[in-house]
Amino acid sequence: MHKPIQDSVQVLAFDVFGTVVDWHGSIQREVAHRFPEVDAHAFALAWRAGYVPAMERVRKGELGWTLIDDLHRMILDGLLPRFGLAHLSEADRRSLNRVWHALDPWPDSVEGIQRLKSRFTVTTLSNGNIGLLTRMAKRAGLPWDCVLSAEVFRAYKPDPATYLGVARVFDLEPSQVMLVAAHHDDLAGARACGLRTAYIERPHENGQANPKDVSPRPENDMHAASLMALADQLGC
Amino acid sequence: MHKPIQDSVQVLAFDVFGTVVDWHGSIQREVAHRFPEVDAHAFALAWRAGYVPAMERVRKGELGWTLIDDLHRMILDGLLPRFGLAHLSEADRRSLNRVWHALDPWPDSVEGIQRLKSRFTVTTLSNGNIGLLTRMAKRAGLPWDCVLSAEVFRAYKPDPATYLGVARVFDLEPSQVMLVAAHHDDLAGARACGLRTAYIERPHENGQANPKDVSPRPENDMHAASLMALADQLGC
Repeated sequence: MHKPIQDSVQVLAFDVFGTVVDWHGSIQREVAHRFPEVDAHAFALAWRAGYVPAMERVRKGELGWTLIDDLHRMILDGLLPRFGLAHLSEADRRSLNRVWHALDPWPDSVEGIQRLKSRFTVTTLSNGNIGLLTRMAKRAGLPWDCVLSAEVFRAYKPDPATYLGVARVFDLEPSQVMLVAAHHDDLAGARACGLRTAYIERPHENGQANPKDVSPRPENDMHAASLMALADQLGC
Repeated sequence: MHKPIQDSVQVLAFDVFGTVVDWHGSIQREVAHRFPEVDAHAFALAWRAGYVPAMERVRKGELGWTLIDDLHRMILDGLLPRFGLAHLSEADRRSLNRVWHALDPWPDSVEGIQRLKSRFTVTTLSNGNIGLLTRMAKRAGLPWDCVLSAEVFRAYKPDPATYLGVARVFDLEPSQVMLVAAHHDDLAGARACGLRTAYIERPHENGQANPKDVSPRPENDMHAASLMALADQLGC
């Protein structure tokens, strides 16, 4: 007979962008507020679309180690001309780039994490940098026990150094850590390192107009419609 | 006219052992409970006395990068024979070493940090490792916004990489960060890097029988009898 998962897992490591916070809605709102003439939905998607290729450049060594704040800024500088915003000043660009520090949580995130925290150590495991994650948590009230980031491991997910790094930091076996994420590629990376995995449905991560397939996949240990539902399933 | 310090400082970085938690009292209680025949006061002092020399060995390169958990264990293994405890099993040693994860806060720490958190970002800046600091905070209810450690910077205080690392993580000038500590050497290291400094009186850090000189020194920006007093002075 198998032990229930909540008896072996001690740490829940959360992906953040898309899983805990609504990057698309937050960026769309901010861009629409600052630049009413711009297609804010397309702008949010374009900004995010630059994210994986930029991290790939770091992973391949084309770029030295670079924090997400700086990658976001490089991508932003590249896409402003396409949206008729090439005239933005340095101060405006810097201020706009900080929107990633002020993303709104999904409605269930704060209370869900609070409940899960009663039984587990709850930490971020995000490609976002520590300063970004800390500012975001403080503004949104996300009650992390710990803020872990690619910045700590100097490697971006899905590099095994990140998933195994969480286990090492807490002196645990990989199977005592569960990654909580809304992205199957992230969960696959964790699973390959021996972590447990929980998929969270975020059908509107890419916008209301762009629903995402959130159907269950058997390779994940858990599947939940929200962090509150995950807390229910884990008896928190 | 100078701006008040609370208008320029954004992050308070806390030393932990001795400043936020009572390592001596906690270790003394645990050792007295496990081994009534042992001089628990002397044991606590001896364990802590090995700490700075062990970090020095890492700083000089005699030892590769080693976490405090492992340094504590090396020191423990060295002093057990002196206290008639050479017979302790591996499991007992491992369990005893974990007492550093379960140190009790000073009576003012939790409420003081909570009040300071209303105005500042509050983070650890400890030589303790991330897992140790996270477990300690969860047990004691220390409400950190962020857990920074020598482990993140792979350097032990007073290495400038630690103090400047906090400023870099939050994308701030060093003068926008204040170190809060009960140790003048730590504060001197921070000051040399341009950080602001707050000294906290912990007269019984080394035990009730061993009072420490806590008189003010003019080179520190602030001097407070407790974290509650610091919150008063900073208008929190």
